Amino acid sequence: MVKKASITLADGRELIYFGDQADEAASYPDLRRLPRIEVSSQVRHDPLLGEWVIVAGHRQDRTFMPPADHCPLDPSTPERLTEIPAPSYQVVVFENRFPSLVPGGGLGAGVPGGGRDGPDGLLATRPGNGRCEVVCFSENHTASFADLTHDQAALVLAAWIDRSAALAALPGVEQVYCFENRGREIGVTLGHPHGQIYAYPFVTPRTARMLATSRAYQRDTGRNLFDDVLAAEVVDGSRMVTGTEHWVGFVPHAAHWPYEVHLYPRRRVPDLSELTAAERDDFCDAYLHLLRRFDRLFDAPAPYISGWHQAPVHADRSEFALHLELFTIRRAPGKLKYLAGSESGMGAFTNDIAPEAAAATLRELGAGGRA
Amino acid sequence: MVKKASITLADGRELIYFGDQADEAASYPDLRRLPRIEVSSQVRHDPLLGEWVIVAGHRQDRTFMPPADHCPLDPSTPERLTEIPAPSYQVVVFENRFPSLVPGGGLGAGVPGGGRDGPDGLLATRPGNGRCEVVCFSENHTASFADLTHDQAALVLAAWIDRSAALAALPGVEQVYCFENRGREIGVTLGHPHGQIYAYPFVTPRTARMLATSRAYQRDTGRNLFDDVLAAEVVDGSRMVTGTEHWVGFVPHAAHWPYEVHLYPRRRVPDLSELTAAERDDFCDAYLHLLRRFDRLFDAPAPYISGWHQAPVHADRSEFALHLELFTIRRAPGKLKYLAGSESGMGAFTNDIAPEAAAATLRELGAGGRA
Repeated sequence: MVKKASITLADGRELIYFGDQADEAASYPDLRRLPRIEVSSQVRHDPLLGEWVIVAGHRQDRTFMPPADHCPLDPSTPERLTEIPAPSYQVVVFENRFPSLVPGGGLGAGVPGGGRDGPDGLLATRPGNGRCEVVCFSENHTASFADLTHDQAALVLAAWIDRSAALAALPGVEQVYCFENRGREIGVTLGHPHGQIYAYPFVTPRTARMLATSRAYQRDTGRNLFDDVLAAEVVDGSRMVTGTEHWVGFVPHAAHWPYEVHLYPRRRVPDLSELTAAERDDFCDAYLHLLRRFDRLFDAPAPYISGWHQAPVHADRSEFALHLELFTIRRAPGKLKYLAGSESGMGAFTNDIAPEAAAATLRELGAGGRA
Repeated sequence: MVKKASITLADGRELIYFGDQADEAASYPDLRRLPRIEVSSQVRHDPLLGEWVIVAGHRQDRTFMPPADHCPLDPSTPERLTEIPAPSYQVVVFENRFPSLVPGGGLGAGVPGGGRDGPDGLLATRPGNGRCEVVCFSENHTASFADLTHDQAALVLAAWIDRSAALAALPGVEQVYCFENRGREIGVTLGHPHGQIYAYPFVTPRTARMLATSRAYQRDTGRNLFDDVLAAEVVDGSRMVTGTEHWVGFVPHAAHWPYEVHLYPRRRVPDLSELTAAERDDFCDAYLHLLRRFDRLFDAPAPYISGWHQAPVHADRSEFALHLELFTIRRAPGKLKYLAGSESGMGAFTNDIAPEAAAATLRELGAGGRA
């Protein structure tokens, strides 16, 4: 069982240390005078697309790429107080100071209820009920996830598992998403190695689509779509990147992004909580090796988005297959894949790199040592 | 009826001049020695999302932001030959030299057939059959669409209508999308005012979702979803931006982007070809006024994506409502809306600007004169 200890920050937010030194770290109080941020969040239903959009009005002022010597994710020193009061930490999770989603939506009782047939008819609005957390992977400001040791990665995974379960238990939460954005090119405002966790009050549009195709496939064939897609990719083999005892990583047949890898456990489970100790342990090797391949793709470490696709909290749990999706928006040194008219307007992606070629490149790069 | 005249470029591509001087312009041959670009394009089915992705292998080398004195969209001069052989033009359309989609997919007979039940099973591939065209709005390199006169805009609209019908008639084409990307921030590689037209061999993912929600609504209520959403927005009124005799423009209730306007004809029609002369004429005023509001949002003209949502060519035509969607990815001067983990990974958008506030800002900016 992972050790953890939590404190309350000066403005009332929760912060949780993970790791052997958690209790020691939690003995440091937050000494800042930190005003409470006024947060309001709604989710609104798009009646034409059939999906929810978060409207969070306060976030325009959020911290914009502070210089490295003012990083709010570094440990605190006597001279400089950061978001993390302790002078040292292993992995730490805390509530985002500028969240998109907050418990109760921060709205009080002022939001109309109803649905398509309710008082707000087609234009439904709900409280943006949920929670947004920040996960610091390391106290080392210049590290990246790929630099972590196996044990450090295992502690991050333990934090993801712990937080996913805790957030899933909050009232109104329908899905939990642990992810990392890495790189200025995708708008990351803090260079310190960190990820985020969103607890949504709806099933996300992408997951909803996967579940709809999966249900239709089950109805038509009696089989599970995720199982059959994974089996088809393994049999085809031309897009395989990595295979360990418990995990399989491949560029999908219809990859949307220049370099994109989906990493599945060989045994289908709905979410992180159901992974065995052996699967967790093996994941760290598989994922670290994969990230190191990505870091060698270009002249500089690749900007990437990486996220855990977990089953919704309340529905369709037995159908879904936990997996991680990792992709970079860089298609060549200095060239980014932009989402312009076809992608953003119509959802129609063009990939300039054949998935088999992307997989071959990633295979050839090798995973390096160290993990 | 709009005048037009077409020629064949040196590498075999088609180019079409629109406007009163079309015949004169078409008398200039393409004098370049232009190698034919080897094009291959596939579309691949994503079995989990139930959508098609274009894989086009040749595009990595495409022209990257040439200096203004080498703009390939300027008219030709005796000293410098461009994509447009004539020394002057009004509106011109030509096949993209670096297309994502080409007739027959450029693949010959080498692509397997089938579908979910076909020989390629879950991992279906088809030729990337279609066509990609470039539309130059003006010969003036430094103009933008918002700078056009009413008559110039009317000629662009006439070209969109003409090309939409012509492309819809090509074998295998399922949807035609006329759009403009404006601004370096969204990856536009040429500053000259221009748009694009994609003729897809599939119904785009976004349109497919709209049609699915629309069919479900028709089944449940006996009513048309687009009609009811438009009526609900008009009745609500808080997000209205512009209303003319024939067109209504509003920020949608669940806008995904910081500033986003949907422009509908008051009378539901499936596509551009069904607009009356009065509706076409009125559109030019409505759209030019809207673009000029967008250009006044920030200290510099807003980067934007604007696109026509038309019914598919063969299916669901009576359900669909033609409309234009215009949005900017800029949320404040110097600040872009990035599609990071939540948006790109899960399709879950966070909008930092309340749609009612965005609409109020756009209303207050005023449309200016000139249209």
